[in-house]
Amino acid sequence: MDSVLVHAPATVSNVVCGFDCLGFALAEPFDEITVRRIAEREIRIIHHDEYKLPTDPAKNVAGVALRSMLDAIHADFGLEVEITKNIKPGSGIGSSSASSCGAVVAADRLLNTNFTKLQLADFAMNGEMLASGARHADNVAPCMFGGFTLVRSSEPLDIVELAYPELFTAVIHPQIEIKTSEARAILPADVPLAAAIKQWSNLGSLVAALAKGDLPLLARSLEDGIVEPVRKRLIPRFDELKEASMAAGALGGGISGSGPSVFMLAESEGTARRIAEAMTGVYADSGIDFNVHVSPIVGEGVEVVE
Amino acid sequence: MDSVLVHAPATVSNVVCGFDCLGFALAEPFDEITVRRIAEREIRIIHHDEYKLPTDPAKNVAGVALRSMLDAIHADFGLEVEITKNIKPGSGIGSSSASSCGAVVAADRLLNTNFTKLQLADFAMNGEMLASGARHADNVAPCMFGGFTLVRSSEPLDIVELAYPELFTAVIHPQIEIKTSEARAILPADVPLAAAIKQWSNLGSLVAALAKGDLPLLARSLEDGIVEPVRKRLIPRFDELKEASMAAGALGGGISGSGPSVFMLAESEGTARRIAEAMTGVYADSGIDFNVHVSPIVGEGVEVVE
Repeated sequence: MDSVLVHAPATVSNVVCGFDCLGFALAEPFDEITVRRIAEREIRIIHHDEYKLPTDPAKNVAGVALRSMLDAIHADFGLEVEITKNIKPGSGIGSSSASSCGAVVAADRLLNTNFTKLQLADFAMNGEMLASGARHADNVAPCMFGGFTLVRSSEPLDIVELAYPELFTAVIHPQIEIKTSEARAILPADVPLAAAIKQWSNLGSLVAALAKGDLPLLARSLEDGIVEPVRKRLIPRFDELKEASMAAGALGGGISGSGPSVFMLAESEGTARRIAEAMTGVYADSGIDFNVHVSPIVGEGVEVVE
Repeated sequence: MDSVLVHAPATVSNVVCGFDCLGFALAEPFDEITVRRIAEREIRIIHHDEYKLPTDPAKNVAGVALRSMLDAIHADFGLEVEITKNIKPGSGIGSSSASSCGAVVAADRLLNTNFTKLQLADFAMNGEMLASGARHADNVAPCMFGGFTLVRSSEPLDIVELAYPELFTAVIHPQIEIKTSEARAILPADVPLAAAIKQWSNLGSLVAALAKGDLPLLARSLEDGIVEPVRKRLIPRFDELKEASMAAGALGGGISGSGPSVFMLAESEGTARRIAEAMTGVYADSGIDFNVHVSPIVGEGVEVVE
């Protein structure tokens, strides 16, 4: 095999009451990533997009993830990576995770190293370290495993694949910049125990609702009294987006990752499309550029295409 | 029907990382409760045990629960309740919930009022209000529904019946007094957000592990960084109990309710018996009276016997 092409999906992390642990994978958008072996002991990065992401492998999430993988196998060769990003950097739907997960999955297939998904997720988390300053797996996990995932622990890494019913999502990406560091900085250091109990009761209930396919329970569980009240101020018209989406039949939803994207869950593709229209209506006269995605939640993470 | 006899099981609430929402029902011990209709518009309580619980219905949990039920149906008659308590009051395995749940289930059957379990749980919670000063459902829910339950919300009451695999529990009841009010008072008002995230990641994972029947994941999820570190000081030899239980094959465990009972989960009855022996060994020379129960976790809550 000379090269391997993979598709690495966008992902939504946090998922309302599942802050810092829950996430799910979308069918689209996805990044296209090709990896090939080169004789030189270096990592070369080629971007086929307009985003001007760094090509210095030490400053690129895919480069950092691949470096940790090559070091682990004591490689005496290098890799060339071509990335076509369809997931806009900074959108809050796992753009950096898609790059790092896609790169390591492609390299693993190319080199026949047969790492487990958990090991590959661990390499990819080094990319997250570069992107956000922490070895988070909340987007890496759903990107690698697909479907709904729960990160029980980052160190040591423990990822739980959750059972879930057929679900669709509508995501709006307002093209404003929210720095992950800023979104982190405004979080409270401490929370009232009562609020924490409410949050974990909802999260436990959400996991049960997904396993049972109980959509009314899922809807009742999609409540966040800790992070959303603080972060929604960073997203123009957040309350209006939510209100219009609920009126259009959304089960619930909230901020994707640390924003600015906002996602809503729906039980059918038709409803997800109506939600996307409702979101579009809210943003139409906002003066803010935006785009909207509708996608099923899919069981496959990074997919090896050829 | 002249009278109805029910068995109302002991329950374990909190369940390590599931503070204030999770609970499960035991096959034994259980209270035996008989309710019969009387012409007088009053509630009469007769105890067949040594515990000297109040017989004034306004000061008795079963009396308060039944009163709220009779008021709801505008009854122009009364009820007589005979209670044989096998679950020691103050043990931390849902003694008050067994009285109140048992009484309302028996009355519902006697009077053919056909309330739902959720409505009956709501009446029983008035008994909890008397017992602990709050309308908590964490023992009421598993006592009423059986199995593992999660209380998503107390007001309005929202109870989730969880899927779970075959499991056994060993419970030791050191006969010391811990007041629920004291156990509440030592809890912190606020908790670090990082600790709360860890707790809800574990709870989400625990619910998933129960649904999957994934016992190694269940074991990894049984971790409590918020309540146990504070409350275990109220229970002599808590760390030794846990250590000996883990060595005997326990999946994990912790304080039952607000204590003083300590429970451990096991995948087989044999292991639960070995854990019970290990716990007995820890307490043998403590100078504290104690008793030990071994029971499967059962799917039935209050059972109508005749």
